[in-house]
Amino acid sequence: MTAQYIKSVVKTVPDYPKPGILFRDVTSVLEDHKAFSSCIALLLEEFQDMGFNKVAGTEARGFLFGAPLAIEMGIGFVPVRKPNKLPREVVSETYDLEYGTDTLEIHKDAIQPGDKVLLIDDLLATGGTIEASAKLIRTLGGTIEHAGFVIGLPELGGREKLTAMGIKSFTLCEFDGE
Amino acid sequence: MTAQYIKSVVKTVPDYPKPGILFRDVTSVLEDHKAFSSCIALLLEEFQDMGFNKVAGTEARGFLFGAPLAIEMGIGFVPVRKPNKLPREVVSETYDLEYGTDTLEIHKDAIQPGDKVLLIDDLLATGGTIEASAKLIRTLGGTIEHAGFVIGLPELGGREKLTAMGIKSFTLCEFDGE
Repeated sequence: MTAQYIKSVVKTVPDYPKPGILFRDVTSVLEDHKAFSSCIALLLEEFQDMGFNKVAGTEARGFLFGAPLAIEMGIGFVPVRKPNKLPREVVSETYDLEYGTDTLEIHKDAIQPGDKVLLIDDLLATGGTIEASAKLIRTLGGTIEHAGFVIGLPELGGREKLTAMGIKSFTLCEFDGE
Repeated sequence: MTAQYIKSVVKTVPDYPKPGILFRDVTSVLEDHKAFSSCIALLLEEFQDMGFNKVAGTEARGFLFGAPLAIEMGIGFVPVRKPNKLPREVVSETYDLEYGTDTLEIHKDAIQPGDKVLLIDDLLATGGTIEASAKLIRTLGGTIEHAGFVIGLPELGGREKLTAMGIKSFTLCEFDGE
């Protein structure tokens, strides 16, 4: 199965979460075994043999793709979570949303200095959550130079934001405002 | 790897989220590739060849085990989510917590009448979230008779609650108040 097939399975929901937005719904990919397993296979093909020793994924949809990929790559998975979800000592990063702010946390002992970490999420939009996740990993001494996504929305500038941080983005399919 | 190995990897955090609670932290299993992949292999061994056509998992930690298992089983994954996260038409179920209530949602078109659904979560405690998830699946006409968990806390009565609903629980390891 190809990335084109995956793109064909993504459902577009108009006017969600507010009028004028075309929401790209990745749950339709999860429900289609061929599409979901192809996502993991294509991400594996891209990122295997690059020396990563951990995959990190951001709550909650990053868990859906990052966890299976970590298993396939034969390395551990590190969850980046919303506040007050992780029970051990954490570091936190607060970042701006369109309205207000949000915060992400990671266990302090989940990343060791020198770890080479691959960051995975379902969707690259403005890149805000990925930027915050990458900062957390770097705060703990991990190296983060690559991020992988199922869907990219190039008009929203996430790729450029991550490039400015020294992070190369890989997306399986992209949508313009089509 | 055995279930005993998985149990040995689970970290216990005392007095979280409040004094007197021994919190069983499944993130330590995710970080250990051998333990994480063994969870999926043991769940697969238990549930394959039973005719399931969908795996459902509850936000957020149910995603971590349910999604890889669905891929291994060769069937689709259905996320059960917190309110206002799913973009298409949903059904909702509100359930009691120790203090207050919580609500879960599922896409109406994610389950078809006659679907045979396996429910997966990280932990079986009181069974409240699993009960609500199962009700959503049944509301949509799906059959749900089995649920799988990495960790069980038998003292909290979740197994009995699910048995009363006609759901058989399978746990990879269990902790008493030890």
